[in-house]
Amino acid sequence: MNERVREILSWYSADNPGTLSSLARMMNHGRLGGTGKFVILPVDQGFEHGPARSFAANAEGYDPRYHFQLALESGCNAYAAPLGFIEAGAAEFAGEIPLILKLNNSDSLYSSKDPCPAITGSVDEALRLGCCAIGFTIYPGSSERNEMYHQIRGLTEEAKRKGLAVVVWSYPRGSGLSKEGETGIDVAAYAAQIACQLGAHIVKVKPPTAHIEQDAAKKVYEKQRIPIGTLAERVRHVVQSAFNGRRIVIFSGGEAKETNAIYDEVRGIRDGGGFGSIIGRNSFQRPRKDALEFLGQVMDIYAGKTK
Amino acid sequence: MNERVREILSWYSADNPGTLSSLARMMNHGRLGGTGKFVILPVDQGFEHGPARSFAANAEGYDPRYHFQLALESGCNAYAAPLGFIEAGAAEFAGEIPLILKLNNSDSLYSSKDPCPAITGSVDEALRLGCCAIGFTIYPGSSERNEMYHQIRGLTEEAKRKGLAVVVWSYPRGSGLSKEGETGIDVAAYAAQIACQLGAHIVKVKPPTAHIEQDAAKKVYEKQRIPIGTLAERVRHVVQSAFNGRRIVIFSGGEAKETNAIYDEVRGIRDGGGFGSIIGRNSFQRPRKDALEFLGQVMDIYAGKTK
Amino acid sequence: MNERVREILSWYSADNPGTLSSLARMMNHGRLGGTGKFVILPVDQGFEHGPARSFAANAEGYDPRYHFQLALESGCNAYAAPLGFIEAGAAEFAGEIPLILKLNNSDSLYSSKDPCPAITGSVDEALRLGCCAIGFTIYPGSSERNEMYHQIRGLTEEAKRKGLAVVVWSYPRGSGLSKEGETGIDVAAYAAQIACQLGAHIVKVKPPTAHIEQDAAKKVYEKQRIPIGTLAERVRHVVQSAFNGRRIVIFSGGEAKETNAIYDEVRGIRDGGGFGSIIGRNSFQRPRKDALEFLGQVMDIYAGKTK
Amino acid sequence: MNERVREILSWYSADNPGTLSSLARMMNHGRLGGTGKFVILPVDQGFEHGPARSFAANAEGYDPRYHFQLALESGCNAYAAPLGFIEAGAAEFAGEIPLILKLNNSDSLYSSKDPCPAITGSVDEALRLGCCAIGFTIYPGSSERNEMYHQIRGLTEEAKRKGLAVVVWSYPRGSGLSKEGETGIDVAAYAAQIACQLGAHIVKVKPPTAHIEQDAAKKVYEKQRIPIGTLAERVRHVVQSAFNGRRIVIFSGGEAKETNAIYDEVRGIRDGGGFGSIIGRNSFQRPRKDALEFLGQVMDIYAGKTK
Amino acid sequence: MNERVREILSWYSADNPGTLSSLARMMNHGRLGGTGKFVILPVDQGFEHGPARSFAANAEGYDPRYHFQLALESGCNAYAAPLGFIEAGAAEFAGEIPLILKLNNSDSLYSSKDPCPAITGSVDEALRLGCCAIGFTIYPGSSERNEMYHQIRGLTEEAKRKGLAVVVWSYPRGSGLSKEGETGIDVAAYAAQIACQLGAHIVKVKPPTAHIEQDAAKKVYEKQRIPIGTLAERVRHVVQSAFNGRRIVIFSGGEAKETNAIYDEVRGIRDGGGFGSIIGRNSFQRPRKDALEFLGQVMDIYAGKTK
Repeated sequence: MNERVREILSWYSADNPGTLSSLARMMNHGRLGGTGKFVILPVDQGFEHGPARSFAANAEGYDPRYHFQLALESGCNAYAAPLGFIEAGAAEFAGEIPLILKLNNSDSLYSSKDPCPAITGSVDEALRLGCCAIGFTIYPGSSERNEMYHQIRGLTEEAKRKGLAVVVWSYPRGSGLSKEGETGIDVAAYAAQIACQLGAHIVKVKPPTAHIEQDAAKKVYEKQRIPIGTLAERVRHVVQSAFNGRRIVIFSGGEAKETNAIYDEVRGIRDGGGFGSIIGRNSFQRPRKDALEFLGQVMDIYAGKTK
Repeated sequence: MNERVREILSWYSADNPGTLSSLARMMNHGRLGGTGKFVILPVDQGFEHGPARSFAANAEGYDPRYHFQLALESGCNAYAAPLGFIEAGAAEFAGEIPLILKLNNSDSLYSSKDPCPAITGSVDEALRLGCCAIGFTIYPGSSERNEMYHQIRGLTEEAKRKGLAVVVWSYPRGSGLSKEGETGIDVAAYAAQIACQLGAHIVKVKPPTAHIEQDAAKKVYEKQRIPIGTLAERVRHVVQSAFNGRRIVIFSGGEAKETNAIYDEVRGIRDGGGFGSIIGRNSFQRPRKDALEFLGQVMDIYAGKTK
Repeated sequence: MNERVREILSWYSADNPGTLSSLARMMNHGRLGGTGKFVILPVDQGFEHGPARSFAANAEGYDPRYHFQLALESGCNAYAAPLGFIEAGAAEFAGEIPLILKLNNSDSLYSSKDPCPAITGSVDEALRLGCCAIGFTIYPGSSERNEMYHQIRGLTEEAKRKGLAVVVWSYPRGSGLSKEGETGIDVAAYAAQIACQLGAHIVKVKPPTAHIEQDAAKKVYEKQRIPIGTLAERVRHVVQSAFNGRRIVIFSGGEAKETNAIYDEVRGIRDGGGFGSIIGRNSFQRPRKDALEFLGQVMDIYAGKTK
Repeated sequence: MNERVREILSWYSADNPGTLSSLARMMNHGRLGGTGKFVILPVDQGFEHGPARSFAANAEGYDPRYHFQLALESGCNAYAAPLGFIEAGAAEFAGEIPLILKLNNSDSLYSSKDPCPAITGSVDEALRLGCCAIGFTIYPGSSERNEMYHQIRGLTEEAKRKGLAVVVWSYPRGSGLSKEGETGIDVAAYAAQIACQLGAHIVKVKPPTAHIEQDAAKKVYEKQRIPIGTLAERVRHVVQSAFNGRRIVIFSGGEAKETNAIYDEVRGIRDGGGFGSIIGRNSFQRPRKDALEFLGQVMDIYAGKTK
Repeated sequence: MNERVREILSWYSADNPGTLSSLARMMNHGRLGGTGKFVILPVDQGFEHGPARSFAANAEGYDPRYHFQLALESGCNAYAAPLGFIEAGAAEFAGEIPLILKLNNSDSLYSSKDPCPAITGSVDEALRLGCCAIGFTIYPGSSERNEMYHQIRGLTEEAKRKGLAVVVWSYPRGSGLSKEGETGIDVAAYAAQIACQLGAHIVKVKPPTAHIEQDAAKKVYEKQRIPIGTLAERVRHVVQSAFNGRRIVIFSGGEAKETNAIYDEVRGIRDGGGFGSIIGRNSFQRPRKDALEFLGQVMDIYAGKTK
């Protein structure tokens, strides 16, 4: 086994061999296999935003098999999706690409200030479908946060017992936070910490801004002169906040944006010591050929094959 | 086995042979057996609207056995009803007609803006009564949607483990939507997607209108020029939204209406690639002879035996 | 076995022999044994209204054994009461009178517009005490109705698996209805239908009035000219609404009233095809001798031995 | 076995020998052993009112062992306390004094109009600690009453299956009642009835006043001329309301008060046919010597050794 | 075994040998091993206050292994932390330092007047990770207190059955109390009593002030002249309120403060008979060398090696 993969696995010494194998499967797969870096393809937008908003731009994406294929061809480490999308390809692509079953989702036909997604899968469903990890979203800052923490706590205990890895999307949101605060550096670092404390193996957060949301935090950032001026610095702080870099932290791409802007963002994540990206809309909404080229470029940045 | 049935079953490759057999039983039964098309008789109106509003127009319908007989004689693929109605004929008609046990229902003696039906059956009850599928209603757009998603998630996992198929009525309704929005094309397509992502094998939605409810969706429909002018186009979009046509989507008849209007609607569904209809009040509220003729005509349209 | 009893049991062909035996035990017991008619003694008023309001008028009734004795001597088909009252006589009267354990009850030291009784027993308690049925109250029209439906659904599944019969008191009440509407004919028929759909073997409703509560129902009653002028006609409609007479529907006596008025009511129920009465306060609040005479007279009306 | 004890046990003929033995252990223990009368020492005030308010007056009481010793030396039938207090002496006093584990408790650092105590123990904890009964408080009249009834229902079923007795503190309180109504005679009698219907073996109520809370009850008390002028008469009515005297009803002492007033109250309870007293603060807040003398005097009144 | 340890264990005579061994492991470990005194290092601030506020002052603390090392080197009796932090060192430090898995935690991205922490671990997780105790926070005074009591009740029963010890952080807070009241002497003593009654082996409270919150308590403190003038007196009263000193009560350090002030506080705790301290921020936010010196000094005060 690759030394870097072995090193990263050593951080998870409380886990059983089954779970370590699941983590290793993701780290050894694809174009970034063996580097300890990650690019994951997530496709839950059909549930979260509706089918037309997600797939009309590149209509091949209506077919669930398209995304398995895209993740496989582009060399992603893993493909993450809700139950229905995974069911629709799990047998056909059995064993070809590590799968993450996303266990909770929100639709946007009803929305509330303090969100709490619906549970849409289970650990046993993940096993049935041959997945190597479960995925779960928490919204720190929501009045419903405890409900989500309770859910992931139980799922994490079960997943670890059954040899799966745990990927937590930690997205601050809700009446405890301002809109700007959702991506503030103090909040992003805190969100990473919470997910790690809850037992996540892999944490996904949004790229943080230089905004500081909480007064009590602001004093500390100023007093300790924590550098947060550049994205690389902020990423470094978030990674430090994830058990001093001993948990895998990856960053989401967010809304569709201009390609070079994404490459710049990826460079910032890489330079700050981030472990990779999870890129949905920015990949599957492009034509297949463009998406492959785009994802290849992103992976090369992480692999250090390109600036 | 018929090629078309075999093809449709191939879309459900994550399911065990028990569940595939249950799906096949419905597809191989009745006048449309082997075509991959569906006409299902649902009779939950006694619970939903009360006995007189449901059965007084054709008083034979007060007797639960009438509907088993009607579904059988007309050549429907399956008969769907709540616990009491199924219990009242399951032994007498054992093995003669595929049964769908409807597991949740709402009565109209109390109503609320954000509906959530009562659970009225279980997977084990469905097995006890010899059913091949469970049926379940979700109301996307209701503040109670997560409760319904949680319920169907657990029921789906259990049903699939025990060899049953899952039919989801996906009816947008609640304070997240305008009245017109309940049948808007973006909402209908989204409702189909949600049901598929939750793991439904068969999804039932209402025939969509050209209304677009959500601003974020409107932009996409306009930008991508998604054709929604005719019912056939809208049905085609809904079917595409159900995993690019790899999930069975059928359409409800809605309120009693003029017969020719229904035939036109059925033609639109057929031309758009819809898999069939689920027709309650429009069949069992007619005299038996008329109902048989009417259902025969609908089936012939789907079978392509008539325009 | 008596032909009429055999016929009635044939309506419950989905049930196992244990449950059929429990139903048969009630139908074969007492003065109406073998007629398919029912008079049941229910004594939950101690819980529902308090001891003095229930028993002071005939103080023998404070003793739980009194009611076992009364039900036995008068020839009732069964005796129904909450846990405590059943426990207090179940051993002494073991096997002498069919027992129905009432599994939910409301007290009147606190009341709310939308009632939901407390669960006060279980199926296993019913088995432990030698009962042949469970009893349960639902309040359609209450905002809490779904909670009650969920409870009875689970209890019904368990009771049927364990060979017990299920008796449902279906009493419309709550903010979905006007006071007059609680006994309106459309609501009473609907209440019977709901209980049957939930899987009840025996349904208890209140004698309906000619009031029609819901506008949508009113149109149907008028259009279909459903006869509701006399009590017998209304009873006939309720019985029809209970699966076209293929479920046992009995009627409660309600508040204590003048004896001849009750006899008239019983005649109306009989003439409309009702299956019998459940008479509490009107029997146990009379002196024992009067009660025996009164109940004998009611049974004779049902048996057709008297007009 | 003593005849009176045997007679009382005959009232509980639905219970298994294990539970009958537990009841017998309490009736055969202490100074009142064999008389069928009860004096129980309850010490949950540390949880309910706080340590200083409970124990500062007689500081020996801070030590949990003090109360075991006091109950033992004074010849009480049983000692009742929450989990912590029982754990702190159960091994040291194993087998020396019947124990009642109080399974729910309220603290007074937060209070609400409609109280519902916290569950603080379990049936299995009672077994682990060698107790012969569980204790539980219900507050009829509270909007939370159903929650408490559900809890005690389940606990009662489990306790009886596992051979324990059930003691219910039935204390009307909450927004359904006026302050005066909490101890009104109609309410006290109703509270006793509810506890008995819920399956309690021993019911504890407060000594009732002549106040009548509910209008519907008032009419009956007046019409039937139920005597409620003296405490003895009121106790007699409460005992009658507890299944005509076939359930053990004991009375609480309430707030600390003048000694002779308590003796008078005890005489009233005795003369009305009450089964005894449960006396907390009035015993353990006195110096040990005074407490022993006081409890001895109370027991002698019940035993008929003194007027 | 040391006599003092043996004596303390004798107070827990209801516990099984497994749990006694777990208590003994903590009492026999570290610089205070065998004295019956405790200094525990808790590090849940990353979850409670966020990573920067917790660890930026001494950035080594971002690494979870730092705290294991600090607790070990300083000679603490045990180290307490949430799931993630324990997982990150449990294998590397297996068997070297007694561990307490903190089972509930609150983050500060959302806050409410009546707090209730999220459950973040389980008894089985504590066993999996080799811990000897579970830790749990209750907030008496919060409207959510019963929820917390229910949770700890179940966890306590399970932990004791599985041989673990139970440490309860009893922190009065919520709408039932004034801000000043949270640390008032009557409230602190009451909080200790509640935790003991709930079955805690070790109780952690805040050093109390001379404020008295509740009127009913105030009368007693005055009438009984309970001495509360000095910290030592107040600690003595709290210890007495914890079953007359027969439960281990330790005190938290609270906010970072001046070192000599802490030493004084520790002397007060020692002089009042307190069993020790639990010191988080005041230790891990100092440089390692200072922290070791500081903790050594605190332990020496408890050990009586220094004034």
